[in-house]
Amino acid sequence: MQNNKKGLFITFEGIEKCGKTTQSKLLYDKLLSLGEKVVYLKDPGVTEVGENFRNALLYGKNISVETEVLLFLACRAQLVNEHIFPALKDDKIVICDRFSDSTFAYQGYGRNVNLSFLKSLDKFATKGIKPDITFLFDFSFFEAKQRFLDSKDRMETESIEFHNRVRAGYLDLASMEPDRFCILYSKLNIEKLHEIVLKKVLERKNERRCSRKD
Amino acid sequence: MQNNKKGLFITFEGIEKCGKTTQSKLLYDKLLSLGEKVVYLKDPGVTEVGENFRNALLYGKNISVETEVLLFLACRAQLVNEHIFPALKDDKIVICDRFSDSTFAYQGYGRNVNLSFLKSLDKFATKGIKPDITFLFDFSFFEAKQRFLDSKDRMETESIEFHNRVRAGYLDLASMEPDRFCILYSKLNIEKLHEIVLKKVLERKNERRCSRKD
Repeated sequence: MQNNKKGLFITFEGIEKCGKTTQSKLLYDKLLSLGEKVVYLKDPGVTEVGENFRNALLYGKNISVETEVLLFLACRAQLVNEHIFPALKDDKIVICDRFSDSTFAYQGYGRNVNLSFLKSLDKFATKGIKPDITFLFDFSFFEAKQRFLDSKDRMETESIEFHNRVRAGYLDLASMEPDRFCILYSKLNIEKLHEIVLKKVLERKNERRCSRKD
Repeated sequence: MQNNKKGLFITFEGIEKCGKTTQSKLLYDKLLSLGEKVVYLKDPGVTEVGENFRNALLYGKNISVETEVLLFLACRAQLVNEHIFPALKDDKIVICDRFSDSTFAYQGYGRNVNLSFLKSLDKFATKGIKPDITFLFDFSFFEAKQRFLDSKDRMETESIEFHNRVRAGYLDLASMEPDRFCILYSKLNIEKLHEIVLKKVLERKNERRCSRKD
């Protein structure tokens, strides 16, 4: 799929409250205003399956690690099939708030599920599709914590050690694929971050256009 | 898990309308009346996750094969964790209407998902637990069809070829594990089938008791 793919697939990753949702929405609005064909998605979510599961995943009690992994992957499979593939085929820019790297970081590094197994599972769910650019918003849990003192989300109320493992996992994943990942410091000014994100996306889009003309 | 397991884990399998639900309930009632500690489950179902998504699985539209597989497995993971493990640990007899073999037969043989991959996925979801006895109710799709002419269930409205592949798949799975499987002809008299099922379960239960005394 990856090599024949049209469109541009952009994901936003990072620990909770890192600013990825704000930035992904800013990018979406800006691209729309520039007249681009763009689609905004979140994982899990958007599909009927995803919306149904989102609450269970985020607020459900007694959810085992295995159930959590499989539910996330089921939602992703449906998202890819219903939205991502059709949009990319239609040459659109797809912006997705979280994707495969969240599973690797949270369930792999965070909950110690075997990473190779998770990758084979994810490949099955996504039919092997990978983002063209992944923006990773990085900051420490200590810095993040000040942003979600009142939250009751299952992930957000995990221990400091868990969040530290997830953050380290993200950085590890990024080091393995430096061409795909773009690491940004979350505490930078919102406008400055938006500027960097937009520049990177437009550059990649132009590269894609130029390579098609060759 | 398998070797240290207490209790007795019994599953009922077969294509739709094969009579497995009737027989599993008859067995449950009989064991209760005999004073046994017994639990009745269905897969997918029973847990909050399972019940919520039973409808999505059976009546949802545009569900991809990958989503279907992952949802079934997520429901099973939760069922094992919430109900099957605790009941077996408590030395109960667990009766389950469908389990892993349904995934292998329907998604593996029926929908051509790689069987080895499905087995590794199922092992992750179930933590490797296997039934002690699996009753497979076998009859042809032609015979089954007369029992569900008006149904709109996604599985039941599949093609004849699909149901033939599922049936052949079940028989193949049974041939690989003859000690676990007990194949019964669905068209036999209900009371006769119940008698055979009950006899087999009580025999296995006694064997288990005797081996513990050794």
